[in-house]
Amino acid sequence: MALSDLIAVQRNDEGIAKVLEILRNEFGDRLQTGHSIREQHGHTTTYLPNQMPDGVVFPENTEEVQKIVRACAAHRVPLIPFGTGTSLEGHVNAPGGGISLDTSRMNRILAVNAEDLDCTVEPGVTREELNRHLRDTGLFFPIDPGANASLGGMASTRASGTNAVRYGTMREAVLSLTAVMADGEVVKTGARAKKSAAGYDLTRLLVGAEGTLGVITSLTLRLQGIPQAISGGVCPFPTLEAASRAVIATIQMGIPVARIELVNALQMKAINTYSRLDYPESPCLFLEFHGSDAGVAEQAELFGMIAEEQGGGPFLWTTVAEERNRLWKARHDAYWASFSLRPGAKGLSTDVCVPISRLAECVAETEADIAENGLLAPVVGHAGDGNFHTLVLMDPDDPAEVAKVEAFVARLNRRAIAMDGTCTGEHGIGQGKSGFLRHELGHGVDVMRLIKQALDPHGIFNPGKTITG
Amino acid sequence: MALSDLIAVQRNDEGIAKVLEILRNEFGDRLQTGHSIREQHGHTTTYLPNQMPDGVVFPENTEEVQKIVRACAAHRVPLIPFGTGTSLEGHVNAPGGGISLDTSRMNRILAVNAEDLDCTVEPGVTREELNRHLRDTGLFFPIDPGANASLGGMASTRASGTNAVRYGTMREAVLSLTAVMADGEVVKTGARAKKSAAGYDLTRLLVGAEGTLGVITSLTLRLQGIPQAISGGVCPFPTLEAASRAVIATIQMGIPVARIELVNALQMKAINTYSRLDYPESPCLFLEFHGSDAGVAEQAELFGMIAEEQGGGPFLWTTVAEERNRLWKARHDAYWASFSLRPGAKGLSTDVCVPISRLAECVAETEADIAENGLLAPVVGHAGDGNFHTLVLMDPDDPAEVAKVEAFVARLNRRAIAMDGTCTGEHGIGQGKSGFLRHELGHGVDVMRLIKQALDPHGIFNPGKTITG
Repeated sequence: MALSDLIAVQRNDEGIAKVLEILRNEFGDRLQTGHSIREQHGHTTTYLPNQMPDGVVFPENTEEVQKIVRACAAHRVPLIPFGTGTSLEGHVNAPGGGISLDTSRMNRILAVNAEDLDCTVEPGVTREELNRHLRDTGLFFPIDPGANASLGGMASTRASGTNAVRYGTMREAVLSLTAVMADGEVVKTGARAKKSAAGYDLTRLLVGAEGTLGVITSLTLRLQGIPQAISGGVCPFPTLEAASRAVIATIQMGIPVARIELVNALQMKAINTYSRLDYPESPCLFLEFHGSDAGVAEQAELFGMIAEEQGGGPFLWTTVAEERNRLWKARHDAYWASFSLRPGAKGLSTDVCVPISRLAECVAETEADIAENGLLAPVVGHAGDGNFHTLVLMDPDDPAEVAKVEAFVARLNRRAIAMDGTCTGEHGIGQGKSGFLRHELGHGVDVMRLIKQALDPHGIFNPGKTITG
Repeated sequence: MALSDLIAVQRNDEGIAKVLEILRNEFGDRLQTGHSIREQHGHTTTYLPNQMPDGVVFPENTEEVQKIVRACAAHRVPLIPFGTGTSLEGHVNAPGGGISLDTSRMNRILAVNAEDLDCTVEPGVTREELNRHLRDTGLFFPIDPGANASLGGMASTRASGTNAVRYGTMREAVLSLTAVMADGEVVKTGARAKKSAAGYDLTRLLVGAEGTLGVITSLTLRLQGIPQAISGGVCPFPTLEAASRAVIATIQMGIPVARIELVNALQMKAINTYSRLDYPESPCLFLEFHGSDAGVAEQAELFGMIAEEQGGGPFLWTTVAEERNRLWKARHDAYWASFSLRPGAKGLSTDVCVPISRLAECVAETEADIAENGLLAPVVGHAGDGNFHTLVLMDPDDPAEVAKVEAFVARLNRRAIAMDGTCTGEHGIGQGKSGFLRHELGHGVDVMRLIKQALDPHGIFNPGKTITG
């Protein structure tokens, strides 16, 4: 499987022309067909080539989404939901052209139910907008994939990030949603009750479906109470194994750690250079604890003892917000810091996730593979979940290097799958990983295809993605 | 919708005869066709009439399940997976006859991965068996629906229970599973990684599908660390509203309560009579806290203050295991205690779940409805989740009373749905609630039916259940 083996989708020029005419009449200026806006909507924040849609439409409500879906369905034209374009696996590319449905004008916060710790939003609301809106309620929306992504897009890719170890992923955060299905009808997948045993779990089916089964038009999300206190810190370890053993002990003891991030030595070096810091350039864990004043101190102290037992430390921690923010800014800047290792390079982010008992072994084998093949690829990991990223720095115009990187990624994905893990913990399949899904789930892909065919018989929703192999 | 309006399923006598012959040749004594064993396998622990299967088969491994599925598929014969028969909505009834697939011989614990806090089991393992097996590992499986149900059955009905407020439901507890689908092929829905963004969420699709999409043959389950300390207690309140406000405040403050159960005055009276106790006969909350020694004391004290603010109390709590167990035994015996209110009666358990902000209102309206209609129906609720049960005590041979109860249940389900809740928090749809699913989810039922038709085109898996309306 080569990364560049993108699935071809046959263009339907006649249908596309008809749909563009329908949408122009219906939406006027809210249908855009200029080159730069089309190019921006095929943007993938990554190494994949840009495949532009033929038009970009900006609906403002569910009824307008229904009109767009019905037009595309009638004329068999691809429809690609678009949030902020921060996905990493070509999710918003348009391999057969068609219409990009930009949700940025569907950005209302429809309800905040503070007593129930939930809210209902339109899909174009970003996570930072939601958290700004919640500021005075004592509540927050925890899922943080780094980018200021739209909540519809985050649901569609089953996003997570640094604090999933405590608060879960979008799988747990979405209580229910509404979506426009291929027949143009609106489906409500559940109620606001915290749990339900009412029929098939359509909510979880649409979360992570990457826009291939329908267009999400609203989401009801679980919120969390802002903790009374937060403590955080950085702890160096002599080896990856020692750091991983500390992670396992932390989770096993039931310490309700809110973030526990692994950063390898090369990435620490990049962070130091980029952020002018002087952290130890050995494997480190970045941690954060949420709770009561007494609780976060107890958690930090317990972790310090665990680290010491594994030969790590000193664990320097603080409850002072300013110091914590500086620390976490360095972690969050890791992506940009990596580029300081090779200015001008493009980055390819991998995303394997393994059982945490296999994390040290998987990272160590991957570091060895990187070294053997002369690649430059720092590692950061959501260690509490067994999920880690390598950011492979490459020149996409050098075919020999691209081939070497593709071979590395294939080995990494297969290594994780062989350890009873997955090729994607949080970035999704999109175009980039469609070849690995069958390797991971075998006949499960055929079951997924049966569902895709049943719910989207003409294949209008985001063709060439997810279920292709 | 009358409770007794069960969906009819056409019998296929010729196909059934052929399948019985195939299974007899293949399974010998492990195919049973005696009346009493067939009656036992149509047992529903409830008011619904018994509809017996034509045979009960006891496979011992996945390959044998595949043979059974292929025989039933070839001859269009209903196949009904059976765990322990403790479901409450006629899930194991056989309205068109056919084969009951009893998983009790698939009861091996295949792996316990203590470092990863997970295990893999066959579907016939019960939750108590699993917890006995885990005893020396420091881990436990938290989901507790009361009955000692099989884990395959608990997954199929998306079971939960008293500690879901802390540990989630089977939706969160199942990491992945394997199932035999209608084509006889085995599907593995995921890996052991704690999170995944790899394609459609087939795990969550099969969890809660009530055996209508496939037969679960193994489950990988999340485990939890046994807490260092546990505290628990009972707290009386002057009114339901006061108790509910205390629940909301507890959840909003982020107190990680492990159980928070609402018991109404009538149920307290039944508990006192049955268990010879002298609790106050007013609305009470039963609570349990899990954590460190300091943590559980802090949590209990915080709750005591919340209760006092709402006019409740005194909150008497303890960390002594013996005292806690006596307290929780009283709560767990509530079901049996109820029958002391009307010896000889049958019970019908309702299962609505609403946003917690509506819990007091929903319970109060339901109590008034019960009183107005002269019914006898104590209330217990998983208050932290907004889920409560009424156990309606009735004489199923009195048609006038049955009609009155059916009308009450219909009003209750519609009341909960109107409050943005669900007719079933944890018992499932089965036969008993199939009429309410469309009322709750509308066009969503059509989407479910498309999935059912795609994955089980001949309708062999548990016909007449779940997706019927």
